[in-house]
Amino acid sequence: MSAYSELMDKMKEIDLIEQIGGLLSWDQEVMMPPNASTLRAEQLAWLSSSGHLKMTDLRIGELLMELENNEKLNEVQSGNLRLIRKSYDKATKLPTKFVIEMAKHRSKSMVTWTEARAKNDFSIFRDDLKKMIDLVRQEADYLGYEELRYDALLDNYESGLTVSRLDPLFTNLRESVAPLIKSVMDSGKRPIMEWVERSTWIQQGQEFLSQKVSESIGFNFDAGRRDASTHPFCGGPNPDDVRWTTRYSATEPFGSLYGSMHETGHGLYEQGRPRALDFQPAGKANGLGIHESQSRLWENQIGRSLAFCEWSLPLWAESFPDNMIDVTPEDLWRSVNLIEPSLIRVEADEATYNLHIMIRYEIEKMLISGDIEVDDLPKVWNNMYEEFLGVIPPNDTLGVLQDVHWSMGAFGYFPTYTLGNLYSAQLLTTARKDLGDLESQIKEGDFLPLLDWMRENIHSRGSILEPALLIEEATGSPPSSDEFIDYLKNKIKDLYEI
Amino acid sequence: MSAYSELMDKMKEIDLIEQIGGLLSWDQEVMMPPNASTLRAEQLAWLSSSGHLKMTDLRIGELLMELENNEKLNEVQSGNLRLIRKSYDKATKLPTKFVIEMAKHRSKSMVTWTEARAKNDFSIFRDDLKKMIDLVRQEADYLGYEELRYDALLDNYESGLTVSRLDPLFTNLRESVAPLIKSVMDSGKRPIMEWVERSTWIQQGQEFLSQKVSESIGFNFDAGRRDASTHPFCGGPNPDDVRWTTRYSATEPFGSLYGSMHETGHGLYEQGRPRALDFQPAGKANGLGIHESQSRLWENQIGRSLAFCEWSLPLWAESFPDNMIDVTPEDLWRSVNLIEPSLIRVEADEATYNLHIMIRYEIEKMLISGDIEVDDLPKVWNNMYEEFLGVIPPNDTLGVLQDVHWSMGAFGYFPTYTLGNLYSAQLLTTARKDLGDLESQIKEGDFLPLLDWMRENIHSRGSILEPALLIEEATGSPPSSDEFIDYLKNKIKDLYEI
Repeated sequence: MSAYSELMDKMKEIDLIEQIGGLLSWDQEVMMPPNASTLRAEQLAWLSSSGHLKMTDLRIGELLMELENNEKLNEVQSGNLRLIRKSYDKATKLPTKFVIEMAKHRSKSMVTWTEARAKNDFSIFRDDLKKMIDLVRQEADYLGYEELRYDALLDNYESGLTVSRLDPLFTNLRESVAPLIKSVMDSGKRPIMEWVERSTWIQQGQEFLSQKVSESIGFNFDAGRRDASTHPFCGGPNPDDVRWTTRYSATEPFGSLYGSMHETGHGLYEQGRPRALDFQPAGKANGLGIHESQSRLWENQIGRSLAFCEWSLPLWAESFPDNMIDVTPEDLWRSVNLIEPSLIRVEADEATYNLHIMIRYEIEKMLISGDIEVDDLPKVWNNMYEEFLGVIPPNDTLGVLQDVHWSMGAFGYFPTYTLGNLYSAQLLTTARKDLGDLESQIKEGDFLPLLDWMRENIHSRGSILEPALLIEEATGSPPSSDEFIDYLKNKIKDLYEI
Repeated sequence: MSAYSELMDKMKEIDLIEQIGGLLSWDQEVMMPPNASTLRAEQLAWLSSSGHLKMTDLRIGELLMELENNEKLNEVQSGNLRLIRKSYDKATKLPTKFVIEMAKHRSKSMVTWTEARAKNDFSIFRDDLKKMIDLVRQEADYLGYEELRYDALLDNYESGLTVSRLDPLFTNLRESVAPLIKSVMDSGKRPIMEWVERSTWIQQGQEFLSQKVSESIGFNFDAGRRDASTHPFCGGPNPDDVRWTTRYSATEPFGSLYGSMHETGHGLYEQGRPRALDFQPAGKANGLGIHESQSRLWENQIGRSLAFCEWSLPLWAESFPDNMIDVTPEDLWRSVNLIEPSLIRVEADEATYNLHIMIRYEIEKMLISGDIEVDDLPKVWNNMYEEFLGVIPPNDTLGVLQDVHWSMGAFGYFPTYTLGNLYSAQLLTTARKDLGDLESQIKEGDFLPLLDWMRENIHSRGSILEPALLIEEATGSPPSSDEFIDYLKNKIKDLYEI
């Protein structure tokens, strides 16, 4: 099957280019001196155009045609062909002129967004956002869709995702979560945060705790690194070189720890990829929803459980000898699970977080379809925050200007955050059945059985299947919001006795 | 002149590939987790073959032919054409099969050299070294030469360098330096090192001192970084992103400081490149000899001067408050100038260092010409150490196995270290005349006039001229060893009163 080998050789070269780009991007955020940004952009642009040139090679189209009707393909080969077809079509459908225009406008509008946010002045960003929305609509039209234009954008971040799949999940979620949050607010109960607020949290202790927890849940530091950066992320070139970051605050210790667990979750997924499929599309991590399920699993489902707080308290005490006197596992557990409607998505708790996402999802649907236009945005945003969360942004910096995504043209991205939450609950529900007494394992710091379950059912499966099918294979059911709703109900019952 | 623009566009792409390779190589030494080495090698191999493919593009040959007889070329354009012709010829003269065989054998023999050195067993390295010498002889034959085969290799590291140019410089040097060293030894005088040996040297203090000194002599940390690595080096992708490293020892503080000054010297040269010539061959730093002149200048000529010790003592005291009590500038100066024949090149002092180089130079000439063969090496090495330096290596690990260069096939490289010493003395002699009272400037920490002189006369000139012509332009004389010999004589007179 020499056509297949030829195709895989081409994929290897494209993958190596992406690996190199991964390292350069990591370096840009973590190591690069400030003056280097202009030439770094040139290096990245060269890599990107080299990769694009190789992905649009007409020979790939010929090889795909030759192979696609072959009936002897195994599961991995079929997966590879499906993924290559998708990338090839995407790369060839967008005219080069359009790709360059989009890249330039992205750089420009990220600058005006930064300025608008800093100056709390939506009008600075308005024209560039309007043009970005036009470009994104064009992009969707180039890519094509069956039902809705927005579907073409959703598919960019989670293959096969459509509004008709998402709407039922999100409606169900909102109808269940909104009353839960209301009942917490009505109860008037709030965890005691005094032990957090009274202390200074030294960075050395936060680093020690992050490192120990990341190692304990299974991250291999011979095949990765931990660093600090303004915006935590997980990147790096390949499964042997996975690099995650966190950030430290002297006034509270949760951001660094739970940021570390979140990024470690992404990192564990990358380190668990099927190595026999190195350089092949089917060997890569699946869409953003599945990726987010792995980060949310460790950050929230595990990291914010009572059992985890029981296991980790001695590590907390070792990290911050003066700060943890008289703090019980239950104090810790309650403090890391404060539920409270707020204005800023990235600071939101597990329960309210998804409402922030749903607001963005509803707005994006309307923006892409043309039901609303850019000038409607601030008002629509504020109204929806009042309706969904009962809070009204006092200004646009704390409102519609808070996220970078739209300035980058990343419409369709936000829903994958909530999908990650849903998938993580669904996966953990199945894993619990297989693993026996998971709570005891966590209490004893025995995280390996759970990691192994994810390795076997998710990580090692790469992108062989479409994400929704992978969830169905791993859990026996298509994606659903029921397990997450149950999880949240139980947690709120335990926390607030309601 | 559109052919010239077309050629420059091609050079830009090749330069960007080299920039990216520079970052990956830096990361490999400083940041990369251990498991990542195999895939990093694949990334670097892809970059290297992409660059080679672009450099051997037949269109470059056509463009060179079209442009080379043009009489309207200015100095920069002529420089570019000369350098591109050289790179193109070199790239096209070596058959791809040979380049691959050499790359593979380099990897293999670096492994056996490492093992041989660790086990003190030359026989482990013997066969691979023999094959490497054969390959290097072939390389020289492919590249071509006028007089001696070894000239083709010298030219790889310092354009235009030949044995007939080097021999007089080195003979003059040896005839003057050997008696100087003998007179020091005969005097029986040795600086008091007690203040160094009695203390522990904390890393924090060494980092502070390195950083302050590097900043003071002009390194711009907005366009570069300082890190730690096993083998100190200066690398990074471009003049906006220059990255140097040093290493720390708890038992002595000189290695980290003088290593930092050495690498800062390389870094200042990179940061001072002519930015109007970005991406052009003529805009790059000149050969290894000139590069080494800039590192040796700051490390030795400036860094080990009495004036510098006077200026830096307060910084030493700030860095190591407990260690510097009762240490005078003169104590410091004497300690950093200990002259003593020894076995290991990288630990040698300013006076004996060049004899280590001459031994390697004489051996390489004989090896490449075939006057000696690999089995003669350990004996020839030991005999020459006895003859040149009066010391006999007790084993091959401390003898012929000490340097990595031959395992990499880097024959012809060593002489550039000594050239750097000669050039630095020659340049500083001229600079002194232009700058007035340099000693006072150094005592006051006013390093900018000297840096500016180097910027104007060396850094900003890039590779427009061949290195020997650049030295002549800057100093009024062709490369000479006289200034270095004078410098050493005066220094030894001051230090040892002989």
